[in-house]
Amino acid sequence: MIKKFTLGNPINTEAVVLKADSHSVDTFPFEHRIEDGKFIFEFSMESSDIIYGLGEAPRGINKRGWIYESFCSDDPFHTETKSSLYAAHNFLMMQGSKNFGIFIDFPAKIRWDIGYTHEDKTVVTIDGTDFDIYFIDDNKPIDIVKEFRYAIGKSYIPPFWAFGYQQSRWSYPDETAVDAVIDGYDKANIPLDCVYLDIDYMERYKDFTVDSEKFPDFAGYVKKKKEQGIHLIPIIDAGVKKETGYKIYEEGLINDFFCKKSDGPVFEGGVWPGIVGFPDFLNKEVREWFGSKYKILTDMGIDGFWNDMNEPAIFYSTTGLENALNKAKSLEGENLDLSKFFELKDTFTGLSNNPADYSSIYHNIDGKMVCHDKVHNIYGANMTKAAGEYFEKEFGKSKILMFSRASYVGAHRSSGIWFGDNHSWWSHILLNLKMLPSANMCGFLYCGADLGGFNENATRDLVLRFLALGVFTPLMRNHAALGTRNQECYNFDNSDDFKDIIEVRYRLIPYLYNTFCKASETNDMIFRPLAFDYPDDKLARECETQLLLGDECMICPVYEQNVNGRYVYLPEDMTYVKLSGTNVETRFMEKGIHYIDVALNEVPLFIKKGKKVPLCKPAMRTSLLDVENLEYIEG
Amino acid sequence: MIKKFTLGNPINTEAVVLKADSHSVDTFPFEHRIEDGKFIFEFSMESSDIIYGLGEAPRGINKRGWIYESFCSDDPFHTETKSSLYAAHNFLMMQGSKNFGIFIDFPAKIRWDIGYTHEDKTVVTIDGTDFDIYFIDDNKPIDIVKEFRYAIGKSYIPPFWAFGYQQSRWSYPDETAVDAVIDGYDKANIPLDCVYLDIDYMERYKDFTVDSEKFPDFAGYVKKKKEQGIHLIPIIDAGVKKETGYKIYEEGLINDFFCKKSDGPVFEGGVWPGIVGFPDFLNKEVREWFGSKYKILTDMGIDGFWNDMNEPAIFYSTTGLENALNKAKSLEGENLDLSKFFELKDTFTGLSNNPADYSSIYHNIDGKMVCHDKVHNIYGANMTKAAGEYFEKEFGKSKILMFSRASYVGAHRSSGIWFGDNHSWWSHILLNLKMLPSANMCGFLYCGADLGGFNENATRDLVLRFLALGVFTPLMRNHAALGTRNQECYNFDNSDDFKDIIEVRYRLIPYLYNTFCKASETNDMIFRPLAFDYPDDKLARECETQLLLGDECMICPVYEQNVNGRYVYLPEDMTYVKLSGTNVETRFMEKGIHYIDVALNEVPLFIKKGKKVPLCKPAMRTSLLDVENLEYIEG
Repeated sequence: MIKKFTLGNPINTEAVVLKADSHSVDTFPFEHRIEDGKFIFEFSMESSDIIYGLGEAPRGINKRGWIYESFCSDDPFHTETKSSLYAAHNFLMMQGSKNFGIFIDFPAKIRWDIGYTHEDKTVVTIDGTDFDIYFIDDNKPIDIVKEFRYAIGKSYIPPFWAFGYQQSRWSYPDETAVDAVIDGYDKANIPLDCVYLDIDYMERYKDFTVDSEKFPDFAGYVKKKKEQGIHLIPIIDAGVKKETGYKIYEEGLINDFFCKKSDGPVFEGGVWPGIVGFPDFLNKEVREWFGSKYKILTDMGIDGFWNDMNEPAIFYSTTGLENALNKAKSLEGENLDLSKFFELKDTFTGLSNNPADYSSIYHNIDGKMVCHDKVHNIYGANMTKAAGEYFEKEFGKSKILMFSRASYVGAHRSSGIWFGDNHSWWSHILLNLKMLPSANMCGFLYCGADLGGFNENATRDLVLRFLALGVFTPLMRNHAALGTRNQECYNFDNSDDFKDIIEVRYRLIPYLYNTFCKASETNDMIFRPLAFDYPDDKLARECETQLLLGDECMICPVYEQNVNGRYVYLPEDMTYVKLSGTNVETRFMEKGIHYIDVALNEVPLFIKKGKKVPLCKPAMRTSLLDVENLEYIEG
Repeated sequence: MIKKFTLGNPINTEAVVLKADSHSVDTFPFEHRIEDGKFIFEFSMESSDIIYGLGEAPRGINKRGWIYESFCSDDPFHTETKSSLYAAHNFLMMQGSKNFGIFIDFPAKIRWDIGYTHEDKTVVTIDGTDFDIYFIDDNKPIDIVKEFRYAIGKSYIPPFWAFGYQQSRWSYPDETAVDAVIDGYDKANIPLDCVYLDIDYMERYKDFTVDSEKFPDFAGYVKKKKEQGIHLIPIIDAGVKKETGYKIYEEGLINDFFCKKSDGPVFEGGVWPGIVGFPDFLNKEVREWFGSKYKILTDMGIDGFWNDMNEPAIFYSTTGLENALNKAKSLEGENLDLSKFFELKDTFTGLSNNPADYSSIYHNIDGKMVCHDKVHNIYGANMTKAAGEYFEKEFGKSKILMFSRASYVGAHRSSGIWFGDNHSWWSHILLNLKMLPSANMCGFLYCGADLGGFNENATRDLVLRFLALGVFTPLMRNHAALGTRNQECYNFDNSDDFKDIIEVRYRLIPYLYNTFCKASETNDMIFRPLAFDYPDDKLARECETQLLLGDECMICPVYEQNVNGRYVYLPEDMTYVKLSGTNVETRFMEKGIHYIDVALNEVPLFIKKGKKVPLCKPAMRTSLLDVENLEYIEG
């Protein structure tokens, strides 16, 4: 049963599509109060209760024992003590002494103290008094999720080829670089479907432009690549470069389409192109305008995009930088003591994503000026909506690949997400795994992390182990940052090991795509915590290194360096399958604790008794897959 | 067999006490070459070979799969992709197809590519051509360690009371704060032996001063605390505040005791007190002078110290800051493009521990000016030596507690170390565990990490699980940074759980101190990787979450949140012991894989068959322990 509680006049985020009657929050089932303009509610937890939710967020599948914040943040250090990442997914669910779910539809900050201050208490603080809360009561966690997902509408389904293996880097700036990647994979006989164009393909980082020195005939090049079976996926940033003669900026300016400062002028922030204007995506007219600009690239044959920097990320504002420079000037010649030194240093380090800058931004929502603070968490989602609405109108469903960095519930209907700028850390294999069921709960099915890790240098074994998890994630993309080691598979010793892993992905694509579409259709999850299916099994309840996949499988990636395998817990008898290239080895295993050997070129998978998983033959492109002739591995 | 190879004219680091004949590096057993003034050698590894060593360093017990650098670094982010921490412990050891150890006695940078560039190759690059290398060849890893340890001399043994539980925070600035801590522990009936004084006890951060407003009668106060059984442990920083009238600075200046810039004047860096001079600890006369200053505090009853900031950490140099301010000034009024913006930002963020500053520092070694770059890694060790030599002369052995942040092999004879500014991250429980055997190999026996984590906020369960590992580490200290949650045990809900953990420590002190002294006496390790004792056991070989302790035990802390226990691998039959307060529960367990339940107030321990571990009764202070009447748990 889903029940809606409303306080004040909520901003319409369009997260929920279900029409539901509003009840007064006075009847909201948890202890609550209003303090300093904030709505606070709390509930207690027994020690064995599990709290799920918050979608793309730091830490575990079980969110207990931390304070999280809903606040879309461009933060590339996904360490354990962060409170937010790029998304705001305000769904929480308890399994245990009581089973229920809560969705808070509110686009500003929310603080979730889930057993941090007191281990047995969750305290949620909504930073305002205008919101809807949906409360969902059911027996089983999966049913609570399905009811929530029904309320928020069906999840985005990408084109089939988006399940192919994808290679990215900041950046492959020109034709030569892109060709080298395709050539490298082809020569190593490793399948590949997409190559990404990070910011350097553009002319001076201007959205919807292509640098004609790097790509003299972009449309022709895109066509040629498509003939090779390769999709090029360009990045689109939220900010529009301020430049005289740049048509999109000038259109935005004339039409009053950019976010403003309270006192009238356009808010100017520095991002990749230098100073930009931020399109006011909360305004429908702006969305239509910006969405239609994607046509410039689709007309050249592009059929996939990634939307970035849309939290929005702001390196500095002109005002902030001016203040910092003035501060530096005022200290000239002074004998700085330590506090003055740190004040100065902090002024410069604090220029990026500065709260004061966000507070100075204003949106035009239905003719009313609204401070950015009140709607921060739906800015990125509305950029995605701008594109999604255009694509669906122009091309229909499942034709264009799109995923975004920032997101809010509702964006799952028109887009996927990737988990942002992670690191080449072993711990980020597990972080990737843990985010999958949490994202699924919130409607985001097409998702994945940067395999091999984005920031810093990866080791060969890390990339292999990361990819072996990525075999199962809908988005299977290897991506690495400027200045890091070349992370393309063919650049490592003995690339056959990589071929063995990625071929397994291609063999599984019919199964994975089918599981994906079914999950979207039935509001189901692709990845479930073991506790969903085995609520009374103590070891299953606390397991955060394995996931159930569809109705058939359990996955359990190796996530440590210098090991030959891992411990795995089987909550029931299963068949252990080792996949490597076209090799399939199966072995029956009994319920219980086991150690499994997993070589660097192997993908471990467990299949439940009586279930079967189809495999096709591998191919170098998804378009070459023979999805009619399948063999089955039986559990 | 230990063999010494020499190239050029090595700087005498005093790391090795063994007199050994020098052989020419031409006969060094590995492929080697000199390139651009660097000595490079390499050896290959089979896939099952384990590489140990590097003491206090990032990542695993098995160091394979990364590039490390010997370069003492003040870096408070101990993430997986760091190459250095605070120490330079140049010992490496292979176990597998061949067993050998290598110690490079060289005080400048060394780069260790241990299977990063190519998985099967270790390439070591010594940044110079004046060094000694010791090569140790033996059958068993522990024998290699013992030969190395014999060569470098016996490890520091602290006073007995240094095994008591210790509470620290940045900062308890005054009597009231310190009293509140002692009172908090006493009221909660939780044992405690030491309270730390971080930088704020000093007068304007001046070494060997005490702020008389905060401590009006310091000697009297120290005495009063000692009557309560509590030792106060003040911090000493490397840099000496530049201040007219501050005797120690003026003495240093008159006597030419500070490090210089190449062109003559004292090198001025900014640290806690603002501008400081760095005593030139590489000069024997300076060491004697600085060491004798500790007398100011020992005369007031102090009997323990921690030496900090001695990498040395430099927040900024006067030159660096001037340049940064000038750069800011020159950009005034300019429309900054992105590269200029980042250049400016990086100028300010890069002010701290700047390589250019280090390169501009000069030492006077036996009358010769030597650039800091050539001796960076022994600066901190020589600060410690300054104190250690004074203490031994004045008080004899094992009378004064001392440990340092920066270190080099050799400092282990006069001091312990702590593992620096870690985080309240779950992953840092394991990092702590992994450093223990590595530090032991290099002679550092008295060591430990900041329990509960120094930086950022800790959760109650994290502190409990961290402490349950800390029960076994010679230094058992809870320490937390300015601005973080109060991390003293009595500040959390239900402090009885903390009492249960810390009482276990006190019950084990007779066993732990005895094991410690024996290890120092016999050049043994306290903590060994499982692979040392079970070289042919596949699961033991790759285990990095458990350690052997002494001849009797195996430890296996819980290191994940929201779990009721953990998997453990028993390489032989053992007795599982759950310790909690005065409770002891034992259960026989067979060799193999098990899941053990461990509640938040329990300390898990395994005892080998036929071995026994003594326990005394807990007490509120080590001085109150009855070490005569022991009961034994038998394995």
